[in-house]
Amino acid sequence: MAGAKSDHALERLVFFSDAVFAIAITLLVIEIHVPHLEPGESDRAFLIALVELIPNFVGYAVSFGVIAAFWAGHHRAFCLAGRFDGRVVFWNFLLLAAIAFMPFVTAFMSAHPGVRVPALVYWGWLLLTALINLRVNAMATGPRMLGDGVAAEEAAAVPRRSRSVALAAATALVVAMFAPIFSPLGMATVPLWRRLLDRMSAPARIEAEAKAG
Amino acid sequence: MAGAKSDHALERLVFFSDAVFAIAITLLVIEIHVPHLEPGESDRAFLIALVELIPNFVGYAVSFGVIAAFWAGHHRAFCLAGRFDGRVVFWNFLLLAAIAFMPFVTAFMSAHPGVRVPALVYWGWLLLTALINLRVNAMATGPRMLGDGVAAEEAAAVPRRSRSVALAAATALVVAMFAPIFSPLGMATVPLWRRLLDRMSAPARIEAEAKAG
Amino acid sequence: MAGAKSDHALERLVFFSDAVFAIAITLLVIEIHVPHLEPGESDRAFLIALVELIPNFVGYAVSFGVIAAFWAGHHRAFCLAGRFDGRVVFWNFLLLAAIAFMPFVTAFMSAHPGVRVPALVYWGWLLLTALINLRVNAMATGPRMLGDGVAAEEAAAVPRRSRSVALAAATALVVAMFAPIFSPLGMATVPLWRRLLDRMSAPARIEAEAKAG
Amino acid sequence: MAGAKSDHALERLVFFSDAVFAIAITLLVIEIHVPHLEPGESDRAFLIALVELIPNFVGYAVSFGVIAAFWAGHHRAFCLAGRFDGRVVFWNFLLLAAIAFMPFVTAFMSAHPGVRVPALVYWGWLLLTALINLRVNAMATGPRMLGDGVAAEEAAAVPRRSRSVALAAATALVVAMFAPIFSPLGMATVPLWRRLLDRMSAPARIEAEAKAG
Repeated sequence: MAGAKSDHALERLVFFSDAVFAIAITLLVIEIHVPHLEPGESDRAFLIALVELIPNFVGYAVSFGVIAAFWAGHHRAFCLAGRFDGRVVFWNFLLLAAIAFMPFVTAFMSAHPGVRVPALVYWGWLLLTALINLRVNAMATGPRMLGDGVAAEEAAAVPRRSRSVALAAATALVVAMFAPIFSPLGMATVPLWRRLLDRMSAPARIEAEAKAG
Repeated sequence: MAGAKSDHALERLVFFSDAVFAIAITLLVIEIHVPHLEPGESDRAFLIALVELIPNFVGYAVSFGVIAAFWAGHHRAFCLAGRFDGRVVFWNFLLLAAIAFMPFVTAFMSAHPGVRVPALVYWGWLLLTALINLRVNAMATGPRMLGDGVAAEEAAAVPRRSRSVALAAATALVVAMFAPIFSPLGMATVPLWRRLLDRMSAPARIEAEAKAG
Repeated sequence: MAGAKSDHALERLVFFSDAVFAIAITLLVIEIHVPHLEPGESDRAFLIALVELIPNFVGYAVSFGVIAAFWAGHHRAFCLAGRFDGRVVFWNFLLLAAIAFMPFVTAFMSAHPGVRVPALVYWGWLLLTALINLRVNAMATGPRMLGDGVAAEEAAAVPRRSRSVALAAATALVVAMFAPIFSPLGMATVPLWRRLLDRMSAPARIEAEAKAG
Repeated sequence: MAGAKSDHALERLVFFSDAVFAIAITLLVIEIHVPHLEPGESDRAFLIALVELIPNFVGYAVSFGVIAAFWAGHHRAFCLAGRFDGRVVFWNFLLLAAIAFMPFVTAFMSAHPGVRVPALVYWGWLLLTALINLRVNAMATGPRMLGDGVAAEEAAAVPRRSRSVALAAATALVVAMFAPIFSPLGMATVPLWRRLLDRMSAPARIEAEAKAG
């Protein structure tokens, strides 16, 4: 397929992915069950009912942030892609299946705050999703799909970012093994990993820029 | 990023936002649980069951209207935007997270009509959403993103409208403190606030128009 | 607003409406609760459990058909529209609120097959939706929004179709009053009403064509 | 309708279909209920709770794959279509109704692993969906809708693929009759059926290519 038709195929794939990301992110709230109290209950009883839902609110916020981050990465990668390649469809669907499953692992962890197995399931699933995401983004910015006139450095930055999310998920997974309640803090290491990866790739980058210049 | 690519990034952001708005607004109905009566029950029993759901119907109508108003504001603001700016992504996601959470606060208030804490949570959440919305709309119509050839006055009207929604939410929040059952009436002050803000900005506007003319 | 900007505003409104239609139509299935039987139950017990769900399956089919018909009408009307008019936004949102509420009235009727009040609520709601739909479609094909070069006859056919849906809903509502179980058959009168309306408008049409010719 | 207008009608139909596919595929996860255990339970109890959900996970994976396959076929067929034909709307809606119903049959089978009736319902529904899909894809790549300049061979490959999905669903249906637990393996025959159909159509194809050359 060439030209307009290839563009259209790529566009429809991106559109379908956007829809799945949007639905998964909005369904997260469905798993938070509204507490039902008797009409005569005191303000304090209502506040306590809300406090008991804090793990659910944290789960909502973390998963919303994570899916948003995956969407932003997908967005960046496919903005650089200029050609459709049939092979990306399978991996993209695997990514969407992983994303669409997030409401389940989120609800499982939120229902059992500080318990090891649900935390391991959540962070393990996130690590798996991050690895699939890494593959999809590498394909979208790879030689078969990259748009004409995109700088090599710009294309290389996308998988580097995806890699930092995978490393942060792995960190959270390790923390979950020993202190499940603190595992969400593992996601706070994303910027650390990104800086480290940027520094490690710097010599190669400078070399590449020197060649390109 | 420039030209077509920037347009595409902006378009995909708008599309994703539209999808989240659409899903959140349609999920509101899910939280209204269908009453189940025995087959032999009288018409009156069915009518009573419906009457008992009135707080849920009111909650559906109010939240539908509120999300629709936020969508309309977002629509107006991004219609005027002509360039993509990476910084808007974060704030836009914060707005979407607030919107996607609306079905929860709606169901919490509807399940406890006239109770103070759920009403405060609802209107407090709405005020927070309105403030984030104000920020997003100001960015979309600000110097970094505003499209070429858009009149300054047209751009300035968008945040003014957003401000009137925030002020109405604050009014409802105050009413909820003393008379939770009447708090939805706070939203009826939107046109009052808008007229007030229009009048207050009039001198500045006339001056700006005089300069532009 | 003129030209490209007006097109964009119209496009985004249509897109948002499509999304709400699509979500409402797909959420219908959520209200059908899966029966849970013991592992050792006979094939017959499973078949009986399915037979008991027939009212839910009928409700799903009828509401799917109805929302699809509304979507098709909306699709036809906005295909002919060529300009955006701010006034349509309010009525379009009212239509979307009515459509998004369909899963509730469907589930309420399905849970109580052959009972008068739920049937009256369902068909009354449908009639209301059909009337709002009539208004929206008349606006989209009216003088303020109609695209250039669209034949008057083509534009007039759209509200005529919408009118036949409203009449069929009214028929079903009357049937529901006396024999709720047969009320879905009221929808089968759509083609009858359409033919009647076509015949009644024929003289006016011929006259109009004679003038235009 | 001609030109730009026909394109727009086709585009909106495709868009609406994509949205329904995306929502149905993402709603699958909603039917998996999160197990709730007491805070003090052992890791082993949590693992057992997850093991008991394996039929649900398998159901999620199978239905996700099946809907993804239908979407990919729809995508390929409508990429080749170049003109809108009103008749496809009805059949396309029938397909969407079948797809949107998948979460129900999936949950019914997952709740009763290895039981005959739910397995027959699932595979019977899938066969029906595959047959409707065959009709829709044949219409989209048929003489009324096929885009200009599309090779006959490329157009013929689309219904051939759809046919192999229908044959695999029929295989699974037969297996479900005798050994429900192994019925998902029937889907593994898709590649076998596709190769067989390719081989059977080869002589006709070579002839067609000889003529075209």
